Amino acid sequence: MNIDEIHRLAKECLTANGCDEVNAEAVATAVSWAEGDGCSSHGLFRIPGYVAALKSGKVNGKSRPQATNLSPAVIRLHGDNGFTPVALQVGIPLLADAAKTVGVAVLAITHTHHFAALWPETEAIAEYGLAGLACTAYMPCVAPAGAKKPLFGTNPLSFAWPRPGNTPLVFDMATAARAKGDVQIAARDGHKLPLGAGLDADGNDTTDPNQILAGGVLLPFGGYKGSAIALMVELLAAGMVGERFSYEAEQADNKDGGPPRGGEFLLAMNPEIIAGEGWQEHNEAFIARMSAMEGIRLPGQRRHANRKAAALCHINAALVDKIKSLLHSE
Amino acid sequence: MNIDEIHRLAKECLTANGCDEVNAEAVATAVSWAEGDGCSSHGLFRIPGYVAALKSGKVNGKSRPQATNLSPAVIRLHGDNGFTPVALQVGIPLLADAAKTVGVAVLAITHTHHFAALWPETEAIAEYGLAGLACTAYMPCVAPAGAKKPLFGTNPLSFAWPRPGNTPLVFDMATAARAKGDVQIAARDGHKLPLGAGLDADGNDTTDPNQILAGGVLLPFGGYKGSAIALMVELLAAGMVGERFSYEAEQADNKDGGPPRGGEFLLAMNPEIIAGEGWQEHNEAFIARMSAMEGIRLPGQRRHANRKAAALCHINAALVDKIKSLLHSE
Repeated sequence: MNIDEIHRLAKECLTANGCDEVNAEAVATAVSWAEGDGCSSHGLFRIPGYVAALKSGKVNGKSRPQATNLSPAVIRLHGDNGFTPVALQVGIPLLADAAKTVGVAVLAITHTHHFAALWPETEAIAEYGLAGLACTAYMPCVAPAGAKKPLFGTNPLSFAWPRPGNTPLVFDMATAARAKGDVQIAARDGHKLPLGAGLDADGNDTTDPNQILAGGVLLPFGGYKGSAIALMVELLAAGMVGERFSYEAEQADNKDGGPPRGGEFLLAMNPEIIAGEGWQEHNEAFIARMSAMEGIRLPGQRRHANRKAAALCHINAALVDKIKSLLHSE
Repeated sequence: MNIDEIHRLAKECLTANGCDEVNAEAVATAVSWAEGDGCSSHGLFRIPGYVAALKSGKVNGKSRPQATNLSPAVIRLHGDNGFTPVALQVGIPLLADAAKTVGVAVLAITHTHHFAALWPETEAIAEYGLAGLACTAYMPCVAPAGAKKPLFGTNPLSFAWPRPGNTPLVFDMATAARAKGDVQIAARDGHKLPLGAGLDADGNDTTDPNQILAGGVLLPFGGYKGSAIALMVELLAAGMVGERFSYEAEQADNKDGGPPRGGEFLLAMNPEIIAGEGWQEHNEAFIARMSAMEGIRLPGQRRHANRKAAALCHINAALVDKIKSLLHSE
């Protein structure tokens, strides 16, 4: 399928299940971008979950997010219980305006349901010439280092650095050793995971994704240090935003298979103000030096190469059938 | 030695080698706090390096840092080529004021020499009721994931969460698998390091700290993900602050054994504005839940326990002799 076909299928399915034009378009765009960037775990794979959340009434497919300026540098955005891509369409330009003027700004998103990658928002911030950071925390499935029970979500963290005239330097990573979507896909495709990815239901190390999904738990990447980063994400995306911690999201969720309610923390910073003139040349010299090293791939590079090459994406046939079956459901 | 004795010895030695009262007091306090918190790698162990940098004239022992407000939320602080603890004494109250008012603020420190831990600054920010983040990048000794040559510094990252009435929740970690100070101490004491800490001069994995120090290289913690965090630190502490990247710091340094010139990035955020009323109860419930888990130790907990217990610190006798010999040098 090409990107347009993926977008059309996603949008049609979301519309058939209760999204209005604005909401369906925002989510379908997030889904088709993920496929175009080669990240199938955030592409059409998510549609059945999006639909389940619409059908159960948990998510508002006709959301109209509302922004409040809490200060010249802090914006709170109430997502009207819609999917996060809709809120981001409203919030990112406001965040960028504030950071352009004040040099640093925070966007605190509440009352949304996040089921997408984070790089679309940090890349969008970077396209304004700003550094962007975003994180979110949902549904406990990761044990803090030392523990055997879940507390953290997979708690992704994304950061993008602006490179005017070039694609931003950007990473987007679960602070879990593996993203839950990747574990689900490994289970579906019968692949093993490396040791350190998770524990089974008895708290023992395992390489079997099914064991992790069946009552086991994921681990943070990088031991105690990665666990500290996952904790920071939990404190920013829930504690600082004023939305549910992962454990609260689980307690409140209706378990329909769609994304629970949660928040997102976004930070934008303007190097033109903070570093001042010459910031771009200074940073490009560093990036050039790093790129020239043997064995190096810049974060985001593979994804951007996929994007340029993305004429056709290989989509799991059973998944397409499943989505098509959702077009006519009520 | 007790904390007062450590402080006195450090201050006397710094004063004997060119620091005025303000500068000697700030650095001696940082050194004695590190010892009191049980972190010998940032304690008296650093004094010979501080002294070397004063003697060579690289560092200004009579620094008077100057702050400039670039916006209501961005402060640039020129450190007057002194040691960073002096700049922090000036900058932290300004940063806290801005974040208290605007909700989020950045302190960009340039022209300083950092040789201390980062938790003193993030804890100080948290004592104002703010979340604090700090990072710095100096001297390439860490290979980005995939490479075999150094580009990043050990690039520490510290984050503190405010807990009014309680010690803050705080972590401070090298984004290297091991801090350079820890590798130096392991070499001094004849200890091995776990695999993954670094490569030898030929680019092979090694557990020998001497091999890493002798032409080898440290690795980031947590593979590609930790490497992305180390890169973010480099971009914030140098690219965003407008100071030297690690590789530039090395090129410009006089190799006197003291800390090279570099920058520090600090961010403070006010949960009272961003999350709003009730933020503390919301976060304390989460922290209580985490603390209650089997196998869990909150970040900073062990250090704070050391602090409470710190009547006497065990200091390496050869180190004390070395410092005493520096009291009367010229």
